[in-house]
Amino acid sequence: MNAASGGACRSGPPSLSAVKALVADDLARVDRTIHANLASSVALIPELARHVTDAGGKRIRPLVTLLGARAAGYEGDRHIELAAVIEFIHTATLLHDDVVDRSLERRGLQSANAIWGNAASVLVGDFLFSQAFRLMVADGSLPVLQLLSNAAAVIAEGEVLQLVTTGKTATTEDEYLEVVRAKTAQLFAAAAAVGGHLVEHDPDVLAGLDRYGHQVGTAFQLTDDALDYLGESEETGKPTGGDFREGRLTLPVILAYAQADRRERDFWERTLGNGQQTVDDFAEACAIIRRRGTIAQTYRRAVACSDNAVTALDVLPQSRCRDALADLARLASSRRH
Amino acid sequence: MNAASGGACRSGPPSLSAVKALVADDLARVDRTIHANLASSVALIPELARHVTDAGGKRIRPLVTLLGARAAGYEGDRHIELAAVIEFIHTATLLHDDVVDRSLERRGLQSANAIWGNAASVLVGDFLFSQAFRLMVADGSLPVLQLLSNAAAVIAEGEVLQLVTTGKTATTEDEYLEVVRAKTAQLFAAAAAVGGHLVEHDPDVLAGLDRYGHQVGTAFQLTDDALDYLGESEETGKPTGGDFREGRLTLPVILAYAQADRRERDFWERTLGNGQQTVDDFAEACAIIRRRGTIAQTYRRAVACSDNAVTALDVLPQSRCRDALADLARLASSRRH
Repeated sequence: MNAASGGACRSGPPSLSAVKALVADDLARVDRTIHANLASSVALIPELARHVTDAGGKRIRPLVTLLGARAAGYEGDRHIELAAVIEFIHTATLLHDDVVDRSLERRGLQSANAIWGNAASVLVGDFLFSQAFRLMVADGSLPVLQLLSNAAAVIAEGEVLQLVTTGKTATTEDEYLEVVRAKTAQLFAAAAAVGGHLVEHDPDVLAGLDRYGHQVGTAFQLTDDALDYLGESEETGKPTGGDFREGRLTLPVILAYAQADRRERDFWERTLGNGQQTVDDFAEACAIIRRRGTIAQTYRRAVACSDNAVTALDVLPQSRCRDALADLARLASSRRH
Repeated sequence: MNAASGGACRSGPPSLSAVKALVADDLARVDRTIHANLASSVALIPELARHVTDAGGKRIRPLVTLLGARAAGYEGDRHIELAAVIEFIHTATLLHDDVVDRSLERRGLQSANAIWGNAASVLVGDFLFSQAFRLMVADGSLPVLQLLSNAAAVIAEGEVLQLVTTGKTATTEDEYLEVVRAKTAQLFAAAAAVGGHLVEHDPDVLAGLDRYGHQVGTAFQLTDDALDYLGESEETGKPTGGDFREGRLTLPVILAYAQADRRERDFWERTLGNGQQTVDDFAEACAIIRRRGTIAQTYRRAVACSDNAVTALDVLPQSRCRDALADLARLASSRRH
């Protein structure tokens, strides 16, 4: 049952499929748990929710839970439902994000709100969120409930923080990283730490997993930020330039704004501060960002987070699952498309 | 501390203020708990949330929790935070409902979405929902968590069910009562039953409180449905005709549609089925409803629910708080404005 024990003999660069292969059976069980808990006599619920859960999501967060639990030495079954809980919280957040951002696409498909409308996306998101709580209560561990309910509240607060900073071109790097910490990294941290709670309450292990998750989550987000100005829509499954068009200030822009000349500052104020964009503006944004070198700077910060994540794993005994977590951390900031 | 013990010497018709006076101190503590848990470094959260929590809400659901706990013989303090949890879930639902219904007013004031936009209402609603979970986890009782997380999931499912029945003029009374049960009555049932969980796990007491809550919640909803076609906007704090204008099929219309002639059916199809309304249509809707006598029929059903609620209290020992719950049940269906 425990694929985590024993050393590893790895070669070549890490790949997501190799990482996933280590817990392939568990991932399949997570998918079955997700589908089983979408069942409802109200047909719209599974229909809309499956559109989101099945549309090319990489299951990175549940993967972190599965690997974290195994790497911490857990050999039971509780990690399956808790991994599904993490994905439910994530999916509920996606549904509400797309309403908030008025996004019409996600992962190359029409967004749920584009198909079924905002009202349905809001309410099915609420259903997924409440199903997540029902599942974690069924697990029955108060420390796990504390971890996950705190994470949910921090995420919600981070979402509001992001909303109030939308269009604020003077956002500093620190302010932005606070949004990323709350909105994105917190769920990765909870996904990782929940595994530690299943075996022991060694504070060092829990702190290490929490730190791993925070750093990996930040690495993924910053890399996504960079990719959104690189343009490989088919690969990322996201319409390139989505952040720009929806007025989201992300790190490549924040760093470029900090070193902008007068003309560039006017450009960012008009396009992101006031939301007045023409069809050529995204190309111009990419040109400025290239000139200022802020894609490379963003990647450097992401790589530093990946390195921190790998270091944080030192609290765990050596195992194949620990290695896989390290590979995942490196993958987070090495994506170039 | 326990105002619940001892018999009562009542006279005159019940009044909400008399019911509230019995637990006035506890209600004030619930308000302080609500405000304390709206605190956030993100200023928009308390600002928007206080607009909703302080805008004339009657605190009926927390009142049910406080009285239910005392009537069940509970003498501690846990009911305060749990009453706040119930109000948080209710408030989160209101915020999302107003987005879903595109309501611009609530209780005579501008709705939060009218002031701060849909995005803020969705995300602050999520924050309140997650704060509710954090508070109930802090309470630390798994049976209470099961009760409340199940209620939240049923409510969310009921919200989606209501959405898919919007504009469906052929909705039957039973289908409608199923929406009311899930969307409205379930939270009243949880509000009542949570008090029972604080003292004992006598299944008869818990079942009685659950039944009381379901019946009271239904009585409140059906009475609201009737009032929305009676027209006393200052008193209800709701813009009269809101249900009609937003295309919500409620019991007065469902009963009127069931006995409609050809012309009336065409009217309901046009105005509620297809949402094509002129300024005179609400007056015409009221005229049809008066002719068909469905306000009185709706009230009769509400009164029956109130009677059932009073009967359900038989499982509790006689006390002033039990009497107050009975008064509240009678009040639910006796409002005429």
